[in-house]
Amino acid sequence: MKMVDLNCDLGESFGNYKIGMDEQVLPWITSANIACGFHASDPVIMDKTVRMAAECGVKIGAHPGYQDLAGFGRRNMKVAPAEVTDLIIYQIGALKAFCAAYGVKMQHVKPHGALYNMADKDEELAMAVCRGIRAVDEELILLGPGSGKMVQAAQKSGLKTAGEVFADRAYMEDGSLVPRTQPGAMIEEEEEAIERVLKMVQTGTVTAITGKEIPVKADSVCVHGDGEKALLFVQKIKKALDEAGIATAPMSRVIGECYE
Amino acid sequence: MKMVDLNCDLGESFGNYKIGMDEQVLPWITSANIACGFHASDPVIMDKTVRMAAECGVKIGAHPGYQDLAGFGRRNMKVAPAEVTDLIIYQIGALKAFCAAYGVKMQHVKPHGALYNMADKDEELAMAVCRGIRAVDEELILLGPGSGKMVQAAQKSGLKTAGEVFADRAYMEDGSLVPRTQPGAMIEEEEEAIERVLKMVQTGTVTAITGKEIPVKADSVCVHGDGEKALLFVQKIKKALDEAGIATAPMSRVIGECYE
Amino acid sequence: MKMVDLNCDLGESFGNYKIGMDEQVLPWITSANIACGFHASDPVIMDKTVRMAAECGVKIGAHPGYQDLAGFGRRNMKVAPAEVTDLIIYQIGALKAFCAAYGVKMQHVKPHGALYNMADKDEELAMAVCRGIRAVDEELILLGPGSGKMVQAAQKSGLKTAGEVFADRAYMEDGSLVPRTQPGAMIEEEEEAIERVLKMVQTGTVTAITGKEIPVKADSVCVHGDGEKALLFVQKIKKALDEAGIATAPMSRVIGECYE
Amino acid sequence: MKMVDLNCDLGESFGNYKIGMDEQVLPWITSANIACGFHASDPVIMDKTVRMAAECGVKIGAHPGYQDLAGFGRRNMKVAPAEVTDLIIYQIGALKAFCAAYGVKMQHVKPHGALYNMADKDEELAMAVCRGIRAVDEELILLGPGSGKMVQAAQKSGLKTAGEVFADRAYMEDGSLVPRTQPGAMIEEEEEAIERVLKMVQTGTVTAITGKEIPVKADSVCVHGDGEKALLFVQKIKKALDEAGIATAPMSRVIGECYE
Repeated sequence: MKMVDLNCDLGESFGNYKIGMDEQVLPWITSANIACGFHASDPVIMDKTVRMAAECGVKIGAHPGYQDLAGFGRRNMKVAPAEVTDLIIYQIGALKAFCAAYGVKMQHVKPHGALYNMADKDEELAMAVCRGIRAVDEELILLGPGSGKMVQAAQKSGLKTAGEVFADRAYMEDGSLVPRTQPGAMIEEEEEAIERVLKMVQTGTVTAITGKEIPVKADSVCVHGDGEKALLFVQKIKKALDEAGIATAPMSRVIGECYE
Repeated sequence: MKMVDLNCDLGESFGNYKIGMDEQVLPWITSANIACGFHASDPVIMDKTVRMAAECGVKIGAHPGYQDLAGFGRRNMKVAPAEVTDLIIYQIGALKAFCAAYGVKMQHVKPHGALYNMADKDEELAMAVCRGIRAVDEELILLGPGSGKMVQAAQKSGLKTAGEVFADRAYMEDGSLVPRTQPGAMIEEEEEAIERVLKMVQTGTVTAITGKEIPVKADSVCVHGDGEKALLFVQKIKKALDEAGIATAPMSRVIGECYE
Repeated sequence: MKMVDLNCDLGESFGNYKIGMDEQVLPWITSANIACGFHASDPVIMDKTVRMAAECGVKIGAHPGYQDLAGFGRRNMKVAPAEVTDLIIYQIGALKAFCAAYGVKMQHVKPHGALYNMADKDEELAMAVCRGIRAVDEELILLGPGSGKMVQAAQKSGLKTAGEVFADRAYMEDGSLVPRTQPGAMIEEEEEAIERVLKMVQTGTVTAITGKEIPVKADSVCVHGDGEKALLFVQKIKKALDEAGIATAPMSRVIGECYE
Repeated sequence: MKMVDLNCDLGESFGNYKIGMDEQVLPWITSANIACGFHASDPVIMDKTVRMAAECGVKIGAHPGYQDLAGFGRRNMKVAPAEVTDLIIYQIGALKAFCAAYGVKMQHVKPHGALYNMADKDEELAMAVCRGIRAVDEELILLGPGSGKMVQAAQKSGLKTAGEVFADRAYMEDGSLVPRTQPGAMIEEEEEAIERVLKMVQTGTVTAITGKEIPVKADSVCVHGDGEKALLFVQKIKKALDEAGIATAPMSRVIGECYE
C-alpha cells in the first residue's frame, strides 16, 4: 500500500505571542517540525508542543532556524558554515531534551525558512547542516526537497533522507520551486493542488511549469496549520489520500525505517 | 586518599565579546560549568568550550541561567517554577548535544547567578530545577551548596549531589554565605582562604563568621578563571592541595560515582 | 464640561507576531501608549503604530517596559534604579524619533507591566522612572494611578501627571487595585463597570471593596484593544460617556495643558 | 589652516562584556560613533559613553547597525529597505535621548558593519538609510566613504556629508577599499599608513593599489580604540597631523558647518 507523510511546522508561538492552530492540526498530520527557540518558540512552548505531539502519536522533528526572531528566520543571513553547524547542534539538542522528557524519540530535522532555502542551494551550507545533525544523532532523517543540495549532502554524509513536496507550489524543470515572485508560482485552486499531491505520491512525478513531467521524491507533503483555511485544506488532503487508498504515516515508516 | 573537585564557570564569552581565561584555567580544574546561551555564551562558544574541556579531560557540567544576557543572569527575575523547569531542560539539552558531538558524557548541572541564589532559598524553585535535570538525564549530579534547598531537593528527587564550597567567602552558622553587603563577607587574604579550603576538605568543617565550627559538604571547590589574579589563585590552591596530599578529581569520582 | 481621556496600550505586536486590534480601537480612544521594543514591538511596528495614531489624531505616549520580550515585560526583575532611568531614556527616545518622523509631539509616558507595578510601589524606582522622563523631555506627562508612588515622584520632580483609573478592577481603601488573586478583584459585570467609570469621572470618587467611598484621580480611563469583546466594551464606555455629557479628550487637555 | 576630524567607534560594550578602551581614546579624537543597542551596547553603556564624550567635548554621532548582537552587526542580512529606515530611526532616536539628557547635540550618523558595507554598494539601501536620518533630524551629517552610494544618496536627499578615509586600508581605483581577502588590502607599516593619511588630508588624493592617483574625500579619518596598539597609533596620527600643521576638529567644523 502506498504511504505518505504529512508534515507541518508547529510550536512557532513565542512568549505571549500565539501563531498557528497546533492543537487542531495535530490530529491530521504524521510528522511535526517543531521550532527550537531561534526563529520562533521558547522553552515553555517547546515543552507544550512536544507533549501534545507525543500524546497524538505524531513523530517529532527539529525545525532549527537562524537566530532572527524579529525576522522569523526568513531573512537571509550570511552565517559561516561552521557557525551553522553549531546552530544546528544547539537547537536539535534543546528539542531532544524535551523529547527525552516525554520519552519519545526524535525522528527528523527540517531546517527553517532562510536557512532551508539557502542551504538547499549551497553545498557547503548543506554539508554544514548535515554535520550538525550527524554530530548529535546519526539516526535522524533529513527532510528537504528531493532535488536540492540538502538531500544530496545528507546522502553523502550517510544520513537518511525524506523528500518533501508542496501542494500549493509550482515546480521548475530541475525540481526546484518556482519563485513566488514569478507568475504561476502558486497553485491557487484547491482541487488542482490536491490532484497534484495525489499524482506526486502515486507516480513520483509532477508536471513542471513548462509542461514537462519531472520526477519528485514525495515521501512527505508539507501542510500548514496557521489558519482556518489551511486547516480545512489539510483535512481535504487527508480525505483525498484516504479515498485514493494512500495511507498516511510518519516519514520514518514511509522511507522504510523501523523506529521504536 | 582525600579527594576534592575544582570547578570553574567557563564558556561565558558571547559573539565578539570575550570573558574569562578559559584555555589557561582548564589545565588546573577537574570540572567545568559551561554556560548554555541564556545568561552568556552562544552555540559557537559552547562548541569550542566543550571541545577544549574534552581535550583536557575536564568533566563537563551545564551552567544554565535566566534568559537575561544584558544582566548576565545576575538579576533576580520572577519566573514561574514550571518555566524554570523548561529553561533547565532546554539549556541542558543544548549543551548535551555538544557533549554528544565530542563523545563525552555530561557529568553535572550547576545553575547560574540569580537562578542559583534564588533556587537555593526557595524549595519550589529548587524542585523545579531538579525536575528539569531529571527530565533530561537522571544520572546528572546537582552541584550546589550542601546546606541549601537545591541539594535538599535533589536528594528528595533521587538525584546525586555534590557540595560546593567557596574559598573566598565567609559562612553563616546555617552554612549559607555571608551576603556580600555585610562586613567580613569576603576572605581577602589568599593564605587564609587557602587554609580554609584545606580545612573544609580535610575535616568537613569551617569556622562560621560567628566563630562557631559548622559542617560543610566540600566535594568541590569553586574557583574563578576571569583574570590573571584569579588564575594564580587557582594554581596556589592546587599546589596547596597537592602538598597536603589531597588529590583533585572530578566531582563524580569524589562522591564515589563511576563514570564512563 | 466634564472631560476624560481614554488610553489604550497599542503597538504590542512583534515581527511576525500580531497582538491587539490596533486599527479598530484607535477611532475610539484619545491617547495611545505605544510599546517601545523592549517588552514588545520593534521598529517596523512602532513606525506603523505611530503613523496610524497620528492619522487618527490620537495623542501618543511611550509605553516603556523591562527588556523581557519572552515574558512580555510582566515578570518582576530586579533592575537597579540607575539602569531603569537608562531603560526609560532609551525607549522614550526611540519612540520620539518616530513621532518626529510623523511630525507629532509625544504627550505622555506610561510604564508597562512589571515596571509599572514595581515602580508604583517603590519610591526609588518611581524617582528613577521620572528622572528618565525628565532627562528626555520635561513637558511629558506621567500617566499612572493617582494614589501611587509614580505620580508622587512625578509631582516631586516637577513633571505633569495624569491619573489613570480602571473600569474592570476593584479598589482598596488606599486607592490601590485589589490584587487579581483576591476574590472580587475584577468587576465582571459590564454595566457595573461602566457605572463605576461614570461615577469616577463625574465625582472623583469610587466605592472601595470595603464599601467606603474613596477619592480617585480619574483623568484617564485605561481600556483594552486585545479582542472583540474588549473592543465592544470600549465602544460601550464611549457611548455611556457621550450620553452622560462627558467629552473624551487627550489627557493633556483633560489636565488643562495646552499642547501644540 | 587644514583641518581633519578623527572619528572612532565607541560604546560597543554590552552588559557585563567590555570592548574597547573608550576612556583612553576619547582625549585623542574629535568625533565618536556611538553604538545604539542593536549590534552592540545597551542603555547603560550608551548613557556612560554619551556622558564621557560630552565631558571631553567630543562630538557625538549615532552608529546604528543590524539587530545582530551575536554577530556584532558584521553579518550581511537581507533586510527590506523600509525596515532599514525604521532601524535607523529607532537607533538614532534612542541615542538622541541620551544626548538630550546631557545637553549635547548629535552631530552625525555612521552606519555600522554589514549595514555600512551593504548600503554603500546598494543605492536603494543607501536611500533607506538617508530617509531614516532625515526623518529624525535633517541637520545630521552622514559619515561614509566619499566614493560610495551612501554619500551620493545623502547628497541627493539634501543631507550634509563628511567623507571618511582609512589609514590602514588600500584603495581601488574607484575609491572603494581593497577587500580584506586580497593581498595588499591592509597597510601594515604604521609609518606608511601615517604618510598616506597626511597626503589624503593635504592633497585630497591617495595612491590606489594599481599605482594610480585618485581623489578621496578626507574630512574624517577613522581610527580604532580597541587595544593598546590601536591607541598608540591614534596618538601617532594625532602627533603627525600636529607636526604637519593640520588641526583636528569635529567633522561639522571640517565641512564648514556651524554647530551649537
